[in-house]
Parts: sequence; structure tokens; C-alpha cells
Amino acid sequence: MTDITMIRAAAERIKGKARVTPLLSSPFLDEIAGRKLWLKPECLQHTGSFKFRGAWSAISALSPEDRKRGVIAFSSGNHAQGVALAAARHGISAVIIMPSDAPTIKIENTRALGAEVVLFDRATEDRDEVAAKYNKDRNLTLIKPFDNPYVLAGQGTTGLEIAAQAAKEGVTDADVLVPCGGGGLTSGIALALEADASAMRVHPCEPENFDDVARSLKSGKIEVNPAKNGSVCDAIITPSPGKLTFPLMQRLCAPAVVVSDNECLQAMALAFDRLRIVIEPGGAAALAGALFHSDELQGEHVIVVASGGNVDRPMFEIALETTP
Amino acid sequence: MTDITMIRAAAERIKGKARVTPLLSSPFLDEIAGRKLWLKPECLQHTGSFKFRGAWSAISALSPEDRKRGVIAFSSGNHAQGVALAAARHGISAVIIMPSDAPTIKIENTRALGAEVVLFDRATEDRDEVAAKYNKDRNLTLIKPFDNPYVLAGQGTTGLEIAAQAAKEGVTDADVLVPCGGGGLTSGIALALEADASAMRVHPCEPENFDDVARSLKSGKIEVNPAKNGSVCDAIITPSPGKLTFPLMQRLCAPAVVVSDNECLQAMALAFDRLRIVIEPGGAAALAGALFHSDELQGEHVIVVASGGNVDRPMFEIALETTP
Repeated sequence: MTDITMIRAAAERIKGKARVTPLLSSPFLDEIAGRKLWLKPECLQHTGSFKFRGAWSAISALSPEDRKRGVIAFSSGNHAQGVALAAARHGISAVIIMPSDAPTIKIENTRALGAEVVLFDRATEDRDEVAAKYNKDRNLTLIKPFDNPYVLAGQGTTGLEIAAQAAKEGVTDADVLVPCGGGGLTSGIALALEADASAMRVHPCEPENFDDVARSLKSGKIEVNPAKNGSVCDAIITPSPGKLTFPLMQRLCAPAVVVSDNECLQAMALAFDRLRIVIEPGGAAALAGALFHSDELQGEHVIVVASGGNVDRPMFEIALETTP
Repeated sequence: MTDITMIRAAAERIKGKARVTPLLSSPFLDEIAGRKLWLKPECLQHTGSFKFRGAWSAISALSPEDRKRGVIAFSSGNHAQGVALAAARHGISAVIIMPSDAPTIKIENTRALGAEVVLFDRATEDRDEVAAKYNKDRNLTLIKPFDNPYVLAGQGTTGLEIAAQAAKEGVTDADVLVPCGGGGLTSGIALALEADASAMRVHPCEPENFDDVARSLKSGKIEVNPAKNGSVCDAIITPSPGKLTFPLMQRLCAPAVVVSDNECLQAMALAFDRLRIVIEPGGAAALAGALFHSDELQGEHVIVVASGGNVDRPMFEIALETTP
């Protein structure tokens, strides 16, 4: 089970491999949020999302024999690219099972990073079965997107950086908002902050109709989303919290914040205007929470993670045309 | 006259005030450039451009008496915002003379940062005369955008960071491409690299029809652009190199690279796709040079500065619709 020791070990393995993303801010966003807002742009991470951290952590922790045989992963796109690049930089092969409705740019990039891409239909096929079938004879190691202790430890390195960078700005007490799919990033950050910034409160952020974590935290058991697609937030519409991540979120997280697709698009446009960064819809869920749900937060500081920036040009134009 | 000692002193005054922007890269951009490409995103700097560095450097170097009276500046937008924020954070007033055809977002932001904005017509009025007239009775200190030794020293801090960050990546020999208007950023970086990375070659980058620096470096005397506007690169269509900056560029710079407006728009779109950052047209001139004029460069590494990111949404959409 992932703990702070594993996160610190992952940070050692990742050092010089993943980017230390900065902590950005803008007086214009502070005004909308009604408090000081800090943003951790993991969209600037290698492959455009935090997923590279977990992928590097997991692959670098494999035994040399396992690593040599290669890895397999299933992902709507960001985990795919993270695993593809981490595998390529380890000199090993990667097979990635992707839903056929994933954004074109994510599928193309995963291929271009050297991975073998296998597409499946998200509505009619089960991705675990597709992966198992494809991997029958190759004995590749499955790198799960969140229910893997080493992946979780890798995502947690984001939290170590947040604690250190916030302390440098004199911030020790804050709401920390994290876009949440399966909960790997959220629970990793929560574990890191429990150790290094224990006064911070971590809120998972989810899109409407895909609020499985919000409902699970309320009911005390793992809830599943009825729909499988139908949100612009493709990166975080995971069906339910993970078996590893849910108990951690239950123990460590404050209530979830549920945002609309339109709020995510507005947050993308404001991040364009004010921070000059590109965030994808799902990656903007936490910023949307901070900007448009300020009554659900407390305190003078809010720290948001922009978890990814892999968005097609047409979708970004839709965001730019979303008022205000 | 600005020298490396003044740049190091500016770096001390700026420490903790300006952002240390990271050095980004993407295997996809390397492939287009035909060499390893590194990008310094000053679009992520406070106020969205490197100009905050020079403004902070100049204002922090004023005597307390001069500073108290306030400052005045003329600028198409980026220097304006840099001076406005640096003045506000010093608790002093700022008057900014801006051309009426500057991008709306730059005019609005300058006002919102607390400055008093005065508009003038770039085609029919002389900005120096407007500024002098406006300042007759107030005795504000004029902060020139590039012909000011302290401003130049502030811009040079970008070069100190490039040298240190490149060395950390094992890079000591590279072409360094810098978007060039009056030459403050270019000559500041050239001075810093002369001291800290002397094997690097600094190339000013300019848009077609506004290639005053390219022509001045060739002819050996200050040349002036015939046109005053007519390029999307509003940030860098300065009429001629500065009196302070030209001798420095003459002594320290490699030949300039001249790029088309369309190449700048393509570079913006590729930075969106591959680095998830927002660059304005003029700020993308160096990236355009590295991507589309690789035959004018040598060596295995190219470092480009993305000098600013203050672009209106409609112009950014035009860039996204520029193939490829």
C-alpha cells in the first residue's frame, strides 16, 4: 500500500526525469476566486499531463527482467502517453489499449511516442478483457492507471512539490483542488500533503454526471457512474474510484466539488487569458471549482492542479468562444 | 552602460519577484527543427511577458525620492503591463502611453493593473512627444522600453537563467533565438551569455518588413523600418534598434533570422499542440525561426525564447486554424 515513504522514493527515481512544474498565479484570477489562487500546471509536464510521473515511477520500480518484456496499459489518452514516453525512455516496448472515441491528438501522440496502440469501443467492450486477450502470450506487465501502488506514489510527487512551493510563498493552509478520475492523483497528493502540509484540505473535483467520487465519499462505499461517456472532460470520466484510492480519499479528503462542463470550458478560457497555458476540459475541473464554487471552500488560499493539457484545436476553440 | 555586473545586481533585486520560467522541450518539435529544441516560456512570466523583469529592475533601482513621484512609460502593451505591475507592487503610480491599435487585452490589462492609460494614434502622433506633453508638470520618471541600462539589465536576467538551465541539461553550445523589437531582451541575453555561456550564438528574430535589426547588423548603422504597422507581431514592430542596444547586438550577435507572419502563426499552433503554452505572434518569432529556418542555424541544440503570451482570443483562433 502506498505511503509517504514510497512517494519520497518515487520522487528520488523521478528526479531529473519529470519536470518540476512551477506554481502560477494571477491577480485577475484571485479576484474571480475571491481569494488568492495558485495553480500547478501539470499540463506543462512531459506528455502534457501528470501521468508521466506515475508511469515513470511504476516502470522504474519493475525488476530488470519484468521491465525487459515490456508493459501494457489501457487509457483514454493521458496515461497512454505517459506510459509510452516512460517506456521509450527506458528502451522498452509498450502496448496501449485506447477507447476509439479518445481525442485524436492523444491517439496520434501515443503512437508517435513509439507505443503500439490497440483501439476498442468504450460502449460495448470491457477494456480489461481487451487487454487480457491481447496480452495472452506476451507476458507484458500491466501498468494500471491508478490502482497500482507505484503509479499512485508517482502521482504523489506532485503533492510533495505543492507543499514545498506553497511553503516558499508562505502558504501552509489552503484548499487543494484536484481533477479526479480514478483518484490516483488526488489520493497521491492527499498522502503527500498529510505528511508535508497537514493543514491543507484536498477536494476531488469532478464533472456533473460523473461524480462517482463525490457520491462514494458521501455514501461510504464505491459508487459507479451510470453513463460511460457524454462529458467534454474525457480525461476524468472514469466509472468509479479505485480499490486502492477510495480508502485513501475516504480517510484524507474533504468533500468533492462537482462542476459543469460549461464551467470547465470557461476555466480553460480564463487560464488562456490570464496564465497563458493550455488546459484540457477535464484538467480544468479544479480551476472551475475554485473560480465558480468558491462558497464550497474556506480560507484565504486555494491551490488548484491543472492536471493535463491534451486538447484538440477545435475543442479549445469552443472553450475560447465560451463567455465570458 | 549595462554590463554583466549590472545584470547580476538586477538578478538579486528580482529574486522572488519575477518567476524563474522553466526550460521546456518536446520530441515532436525536435523533429521539425531537425535538432534538439529548448524553449524558455517568458509568456509564463508575471504579466505574460519578459517585460516585467526590466520594469522591476528599473523601478527597484530608482532613488526613493524619484520612485515616490511615480513612473511613465510608452508601450504597445507588454512593457506597459510590466511597468504597471512593477509600479503597483512598489506602491507607486504609473502613467502608460499606449497606441490606440494595441490589442484590447493589453490595454484592458494595463488599466486593470492600476495604471493610468493614455492612448495615441501610432500613424499620426509621436509617442515621445505625447509622453513629454503629458508629463510636463508631474516629474514622473520615464521608463524607456529598451534604451535604459537598468531595463536592459533586467531583461538580461533571462540570459542568466538560460545559461544555468541549459548547463543543467548538459548544453553549453547552442544557437539562441530571441524575438527582437528594440533589442532590449536580445542584447541583455547576449551580455549574460557572453559571461556565462560564451559558446552560444544569439540570433535576433524579426518579422518580414520589420527587419530593422537584420538590416542594421548588415549595414553597420541603425536602419529604420519604412512601415509603422501591418504585421500580426505587434509586440516587436519597433521602428529601429535602440542607441544602447545596437552596439551591443553589433558586438555580440550572430546574423538575425527574418520570419513571416504565417510562420509565427504556425509556431503558435505548434506550441499549443506540443508545449501547451500560449504565445503571442511576436513572441513566437524565435520559435518560428527555429522550426522553419533551420538551415540558417548550426549545431545540435537551439534555444528559443517565447517572449510573451498576450494575445486576444480571436487572433489565437486564427493561429489554431493555420495549417498544419
